[in-house]
Amino acid sequence: MRVLGVDPGLTRCGVGIIDAGAGRSVTIVDVAVVRTPSIDPPEQRLLRIAAEIDRWIDAVRPDAVAVERVFAQENLRTVMGTAQVAGLTMVAAARRGIPVGLHTPSEVKAAVTGYGRAQKAQVQEMVARILHLDSRPQPADAADALALAICHAWRPPGAATSSADRAAVGVGRARDLTPAQAAWARAEQAARRRG
Amino acid sequence: MRVLGVDPGLTRCGVGIIDAGAGRSVTIVDVAVVRTPSIDPPEQRLLRIAAEIDRWIDAVRPDAVAVERVFAQENLRTVMGTAQVAGLTMVAAARRGIPVGLHTPSEVKAAVTGYGRAQKAQVQEMVARILHLDSRPQPADAADALALAICHAWRPPGAATSSADRAAVGVGRARDLTPAQAAWARAEQAARRRG
Repeated sequence: MRVLGVDPGLTRCGVGIIDAGAGRSVTIVDVAVVRTPSIDPPEQRLLRIAAEIDRWIDAVRPDAVAVERVFAQENLRTVMGTAQVAGLTMVAAARRGIPVGLHTPSEVKAAVTGYGRAQKAQVQEMVARILHLDSRPQPADAADALALAICHAWRPPGAATSSADRAAVGVGRARDLTPAQAAWARAEQAARRRG
Repeated sequence: MRVLGVDPGLTRCGVGIIDAGAGRSVTIVDVAVVRTPSIDPPEQRLLRIAAEIDRWIDAVRPDAVAVERVFAQENLRTVMGTAQVAGLTMVAAARRGIPVGLHTPSEVKAAVTGYGRAQKAQVQEMVARILHLDSRPQPADAADALALAICHAWRPPGAATSSADRAAVGVGRARDLTPAQAAWARAEQAARRRG
């Protein structure tokens, strides 16, 4: 399974792509940081980032797109741009029928370091180890994008409530499933995981 | 000048289109509210709204798109979706080379009621009077979208610092203008306003 992770941001937007194999084996496909100058009008910055995300998705054709779940309470100064880039990424994936997974920063940190409040340097270090890189991915946005992709690939079997998982089992709304449909969905997910 | 105003929202997104003529004469072209069910996955809701905004822009071909400037401090529960819809609208306009204007709720209220802290009903009432409508636009999101479009059409000559105005005078960054360029830009804006 190929996962494209996006660490959304208006000034620096991290894009990291991994391939996940059997068990917990993951390999890096590519990583990049899209930057836009803060003096540009906001709509031009958003347009530039949207174009780059479209280009990456079409180039690497991921099976899933993982995006940081943004909360209004954090970093008031930058959160609006971050939310907008996250929204553009979600639409770019949905437009192509690619499942979207939203993961909180704590979930991502816990997935790669075992600790939900890990420091940035620790995330960078663990991403480098997991992906057998010679050095820590720089800047932190690049490492965060790869960590998001890894987190999505490693998400536990029970995490079937996210919209990405609902899409992955081919149903729109998990909460609308009959017990038989839910059992079928779980079985198909398990089969995909083994396959 | 035709202006398409968008009152961004995930549950209800107002879209209002007006034609502005000489002086302060404005006429309504169309108004609509795009709704998405809250049980749908967020990326599907955003995709639906993006598609509707694309459709409206291509149908009415506005000269400018006016969007509410969203602040992180307001309505924490809904602000992320609001910011994302605003971002999608900005990109839809920028992709087509249409100037974008961002206006705060206070600016919009002041433009149509003369008072920046006016109540919703007062905005609806004034939008109905300005556009010679038989009744107040319902829901409030529809009135707010029309009010945004009116606010943009009526923005004062000195308001040449928004990205929309920078785009309207054909330059990327107003702050980079030489005094001569700035004078030319002001003259061209004035000519457009008279024309």
